[in-house]
Amino acid sequence: MRAVVYRRPFEVAVEEVPDPRIEQPNDVIVRVTSTCICGTDLYLYEGRAGVEPGTVVGHENLGVVEEVGAGVTALEQGDRVVMPFTVACGFCRNCRAGSSGSCLTVTPAGRAGSPYGGSPYGGVTPAPCAGGQAEYLRVPYADVNCLPLPAGTDHESDYVLLSDVFPTGYHGCRLAGLSPGGTVAVYGAGPVGLMAAYCALLCGASGVFVVDGRPERLAMARDIGAVAVDPSAGDPAQQIRDLTGGEGTDTGVDAVGFPVPTETGDGEEPAAVLDQLVRTVRPTGGLGVPGPCVRRGPDGVVPDAGPGTLLVTIGTLVDKGLRLGTGRADARRYDRQLRDLITEGRARPSFVVSHELPLDEAPNAYQMVDQRVDGFTKVVLRPDAA
Amino acid sequence: MRAVVYRRPFEVAVEEVPDPRIEQPNDVIVRVTSTCICGTDLYLYEGRAGVEPGTVVGHENLGVVEEVGAGVTALEQGDRVVMPFTVACGFCRNCRAGSSGSCLTVTPAGRAGSPYGGSPYGGVTPAPCAGGQAEYLRVPYADVNCLPLPAGTDHESDYVLLSDVFPTGYHGCRLAGLSPGGTVAVYGAGPVGLMAAYCALLCGASGVFVVDGRPERLAMARDIGAVAVDPSAGDPAQQIRDLTGGEGTDTGVDAVGFPVPTETGDGEEPAAVLDQLVRTVRPTGGLGVPGPCVRRGPDGVVPDAGPGTLLVTIGTLVDKGLRLGTGRADARRYDRQLRDLITEGRARPSFVVSHELPLDEAPNAYQMVDQRVDGFTKVVLRPDAA
Amino acid sequence: MRAVVYRRPFEVAVEEVPDPRIEQPNDVIVRVTSTCICGTDLYLYEGRAGVEPGTVVGHENLGVVEEVGAGVTALEQGDRVVMPFTVACGFCRNCRAGSSGSCLTVTPAGRAGSPYGGSPYGGVTPAPCAGGQAEYLRVPYADVNCLPLPAGTDHESDYVLLSDVFPTGYHGCRLAGLSPGGTVAVYGAGPVGLMAAYCALLCGASGVFVVDGRPERLAMARDIGAVAVDPSAGDPAQQIRDLTGGEGTDTGVDAVGFPVPTETGDGEEPAAVLDQLVRTVRPTGGLGVPGPCVRRGPDGVVPDAGPGTLLVTIGTLVDKGLRLGTGRADARRYDRQLRDLITEGRARPSFVVSHELPLDEAPNAYQMVDQRVDGFTKVVLRPDAA
Amino acid sequence: MRAVVYRRPFEVAVEEVPDPRIEQPNDVIVRVTSTCICGTDLYLYEGRAGVEPGTVVGHENLGVVEEVGAGVTALEQGDRVVMPFTVACGFCRNCRAGSSGSCLTVTPAGRAGSPYGGSPYGGVTPAPCAGGQAEYLRVPYADVNCLPLPAGTDHESDYVLLSDVFPTGYHGCRLAGLSPGGTVAVYGAGPVGLMAAYCALLCGASGVFVVDGRPERLAMARDIGAVAVDPSAGDPAQQIRDLTGGEGTDTGVDAVGFPVPTETGDGEEPAAVLDQLVRTVRPTGGLGVPGPCVRRGPDGVVPDAGPGTLLVTIGTLVDKGLRLGTGRADARRYDRQLRDLITEGRARPSFVVSHELPLDEAPNAYQMVDQRVDGFTKVVLRPDAA
Repeated sequence: MRAVVYRRPFEVAVEEVPDPRIEQPNDVIVRVTSTCICGTDLYLYEGRAGVEPGTVVGHENLGVVEEVGAGVTALEQGDRVVMPFTVACGFCRNCRAGSSGSCLTVTPAGRAGSPYGGSPYGGVTPAPCAGGQAEYLRVPYADVNCLPLPAGTDHESDYVLLSDVFPTGYHGCRLAGLSPGGTVAVYGAGPVGLMAAYCALLCGASGVFVVDGRPERLAMARDIGAVAVDPSAGDPAQQIRDLTGGEGTDTGVDAVGFPVPTETGDGEEPAAVLDQLVRTVRPTGGLGVPGPCVRRGPDGVVPDAGPGTLLVTIGTLVDKGLRLGTGRADARRYDRQLRDLITEGRARPSFVVSHELPLDEAPNAYQMVDQRVDGFTKVVLRPDAA
Repeated sequence: MRAVVYRRPFEVAVEEVPDPRIEQPNDVIVRVTSTCICGTDLYLYEGRAGVEPGTVVGHENLGVVEEVGAGVTALEQGDRVVMPFTVACGFCRNCRAGSSGSCLTVTPAGRAGSPYGGSPYGGVTPAPCAGGQAEYLRVPYADVNCLPLPAGTDHESDYVLLSDVFPTGYHGCRLAGLSPGGTVAVYGAGPVGLMAAYCALLCGASGVFVVDGRPERLAMARDIGAVAVDPSAGDPAQQIRDLTGGEGTDTGVDAVGFPVPTETGDGEEPAAVLDQLVRTVRPTGGLGVPGPCVRRGPDGVVPDAGPGTLLVTIGTLVDKGLRLGTGRADARRYDRQLRDLITEGRARPSFVVSHELPLDEAPNAYQMVDQRVDGFTKVVLRPDAA
Repeated sequence: MRAVVYRRPFEVAVEEVPDPRIEQPNDVIVRVTSTCICGTDLYLYEGRAGVEPGTVVGHENLGVVEEVGAGVTALEQGDRVVMPFTVACGFCRNCRAGSSGSCLTVTPAGRAGSPYGGSPYGGVTPAPCAGGQAEYLRVPYADVNCLPLPAGTDHESDYVLLSDVFPTGYHGCRLAGLSPGGTVAVYGAGPVGLMAAYCALLCGASGVFVVDGRPERLAMARDIGAVAVDPSAGDPAQQIRDLTGGEGTDTGVDAVGFPVPTETGDGEEPAAVLDQLVRTVRPTGGLGVPGPCVRRGPDGVVPDAGPGTLLVTIGTLVDKGLRLGTGRADARRYDRQLRDLITEGRARPSFVVSHELPLDEAPNAYQMVDQRVDGFTKVVLRPDAA
Repeated sequence: MRAVVYRRPFEVAVEEVPDPRIEQPNDVIVRVTSTCICGTDLYLYEGRAGVEPGTVVGHENLGVVEEVGAGVTALEQGDRVVMPFTVACGFCRNCRAGSSGSCLTVTPAGRAGSPYGGSPYGGVTPAPCAGGQAEYLRVPYADVNCLPLPAGTDHESDYVLLSDVFPTGYHGCRLAGLSPGGTVAVYGAGPVGLMAAYCALLCGASGVFVVDGRPERLAMARDIGAVAVDPSAGDPAQQIRDLTGGEGTDTGVDAVGFPVPTETGDGEEPAAVLDQLVRTVRPTGGLGVPGPCVRRGPDGVVPDAGPGTLLVTIGTLVDKGLRLGTGRADARRYDRQLRDLITEGRARPSFVVSHELPLDEAPNAYQMVDQRVDGFTKVVLRPDAA
């Protein structure tokens, strides 16, 4: 089959690789119909994540069940399904507790959670499962890892976002403790930030402030009803405090995920977002960090503070009595309900999708996204397109 | 009346000061019968907190209502009461939400929460209310700030701990998300650390690990049923991981509060505890920081990282998907139930009290505690003792 | 001043009564500008609640602070405020726990919670506080009982609903455990039912089903985006199960509150709604009963089962593993955030208001509402109108 | 193999039946070493549950893995495991949400949850899985349904209680919303009631009141530190209110489960316990019903109110603003942590076990338990005993 394969920093290619097959009784094989490029895939693309050359990548996958293992109960050939981005067993203590984004079974001891195609945050090598930017995908523990969708091809670009950015945005709000009528500051208006803002509004936030330096992203935030905050107009934390009567927001979400390389290098200042959040949120508030918060440099390490260690204004965080929630989205915890919002016509997250392209366009699309070419917000690849 | 007054770094004195009086209709005047020296009082004592000379100190107070303002509903002269260490109004948005340790009414805009006698963490000057290491104490919003106790003088040294260290230890476990059958690592076996361990055991923890460098403190931890971890025997995080099958604990509490000055200076390394906690707790676990986590140097500032900013292994914290809860204990949220545990004979937190002394002994007692003289775990002052 | 006074069953009058005055230091006097007739006022109006003749009624009040007691901290003359329908002290154990709808201070021992003007569910006599269908209202514990509003007169008919039906509808959803993406069945499309449905949609429900026998009410439910279920078209529980793939909804709310007297008498069958909810909701689901569920007959007693005792399909409830939450709304817990939704233009609950009338029209308005005259959904009285 | 088989009302027998075998790749076969008689087995024994003659019964099972299906990940031959009493798939929406006691996969549509050997509450026929009062047991979805235990045979009578009564007692407290320092009234001092009281004390309750008419049961309650309440000394609700300053307890648990037939027939009055709980618990409190609450008569139906329908004082329940939680224990949610309490020596629930008998004694033991012969609190059968 054809698949997107990581070759070396700044190079992926569409290659012929062996078809996946049922390896365990709980596996299914899915024929992939939609698979997205994720912002965190850029860590991998730029060679910051230590993924092995030859790895099939892609963790945002939707498709149709093609073959079913003997131990699978609830799935049949022909079922349309979407796969949350991390692989989970369903029975380890983390999965049982609802933290299926941190499954202990699919990773080596001491680590928890791994996406299809390898962790873009680095560390788990080789990837426990191949990625899905390909014609076919093997899904282990299929009853656990496949969320059934309505038959047909409707709302393909909405449903595919259930694999990652829609639940990750929701997770960010939930980690931060946002409740109806509350306020939230979202730093970053990429797909995850826009989804966080969208989920906040969907769930009854009274004020949603989105910070991003790119005008086209701020325009998208404004279109869904959020207040756009442009950092070029002054310190965003101060702007948001001014907009909230001096108090700051109830909650904040770090949705930057990946640093935009800027001339001045500000974008690579790794702790800047967390520090701004601490200054933006009011005492007793909550912060959500649903993705990587240490931004690694092009060489894979954090530029000025050593691996994983940052200068953080923890004194202020503690003095204000803030709570900080972190970790990959437990997408399985929310996906059924987010799916139903799409099915019932109450959510249309696909407003973030800018491109639907054949699989062969993947190398070019990666380059466009990596270079932040205007308009490349979110790319969906269609392996079955001509 | 006589009261303990802060004079200059490393000097407090018992002086005659004017008696407090009813200033607002919701005030009561309490005749203080027990008042403790808190570990955080040492920040203040050492001049690290910016408290103004002449301030009456002391935020761990218990006594008998002597005079009642016209707006007070539920208290009468003669009622025995204990006062949670922070002053609260009961009606601001934080108090309504249960976060009465971060009351917005009693502090200037932008700050939240203040103890009687001034914040030992620094910053709110002058103190909104005088302290209670004195014969009498004015308590504002008295219906909110006085917890009624059984009449008489029984269990005075248990009940006085309801003012701070008992609920603060409980709060630490709660911030960390400890649940019955879970495990917790407590760093620091001072009064707050011992209370955190005691509360963990009281509430059904299956494993409680207490880390402290002082043998007498470890012995106290062992006496209540905790596992004592001696850092001189090796990296405590590694010791605890070894004791938990390699996994680490479910939760961790930073109860160090104040750095023990050591010859090597390790004790002043301000982020060491947080970093150890990150390494001690298993993925998806929770951390509680119920007090100050940035340890200021003798000059009031953090030695090597600027005020309030620390090098933190935030990358690991986020990669493990940990949650971090911080903030002063909302003692009013727990005090009624912790009181009932004492009254019913199911909790005896006074095991941490090493000394019950007349008020006049305060200057000497402060010195003993500050110099970590063996055996000076927790001092209760008795203003009514001869 | 002029006030609406209960005289005898089916008769209220606008009479001259003495002006209220500051009685305690924590009181304020509010000049009432908007005050609604509540569905539960009909219990009182029909003489089912045992309210004493001569009582000034009305518990849904909004106005401007006219006079301020010496113990009040956060209010000034001229502040525009809305009062949650139950009186609360802010410091009893229930108020501290957030259950301020069940304040223990303002009622005799053994009871919890009382509205202004007396409980329409009966029992607490005489009312602890006079009602607010009057020119002026005394508000005790004013810092606790007054929620500040933006100055001016904007959105008066939205803000006045913060006194009861908006938070009560929200409370119903919360008691039932509704979460984003979930489904809810609301029985009753009076103001509380419509608010429950509105809140469900505001907070991200994926499916909201509203059951009511009156076409004009169903039309209002449909207008806000709910699915209208007409019981004349068949068993509503079965209809809703059919609409949810046979499964039933995740949650259900009993918002009937008061029985519509029908020719066949079905409307007075007191346990019918609870039994229908048990049949409507799927196993492990939740039920919310935010108001009275036993419907008393015109003589004040439940017709066929003795006071307060009903034949309930509790066996099915338990076999399905349902949760049942009950009780008056803790409006203070939600009001700040619901207010902000109005202020920010994200909620407009006033769509339920059908009439804004001068106070003198109260007797006629009560009669219209009691007789279920079409179009009389919700009446706001304006004491300051000509 | 030998197994306990239901023959007809009041008769079980130990018979030779075919050995179970792996039927699906996710199955394991467990050699049973301990299996208890549950109080709810008496419904079945007395013919009230509609179980088919010939069914192998028993849902409280512990043993050693003997054979492992090809799809099983985390288990190996020789592993010692305990099985929560209900069968669960681990991936249906209820299992994902933690409500694995109400698994939707193992039962026909419209029902949720089923124990091994059939539901003693009736209804699901035939049982999805055979019971474990036998030499061998087939366990489906074995990764989900087997909780690993330390190797060996230590604490067999403690660990076997993880299958049902220990987590069910814990679940009762949790459904009721008991928190540390709170109070609880437990009606019924059979194994579930004693476990509820034990868990309450283990988790820091300040007051635990246990109501039962049998002196030997009250003595057991007293031995663990609870307050014994003898209904022959007066109305138990009134006794408990008197013991709590007139207020009532914070929470209550219905652990009666099965009616003791008395001469006066009071014991069969089916709603009596729920009504007493409503009168025992203070306003805003919580009730937990972790098992069947409708007690069926010997003919399988409720004597005086029709199947599943009871006269309940719902009016008082709602007026007090109580919460009611119901449903079979989600044992998998608690079992890991309760297991660790046993392993660490912090819990010894086996104090309820009165008899450890060979399997062949089952018929006699059923009879003794059913006739409430003194001393037959809890029977563990040992299929491997001589």
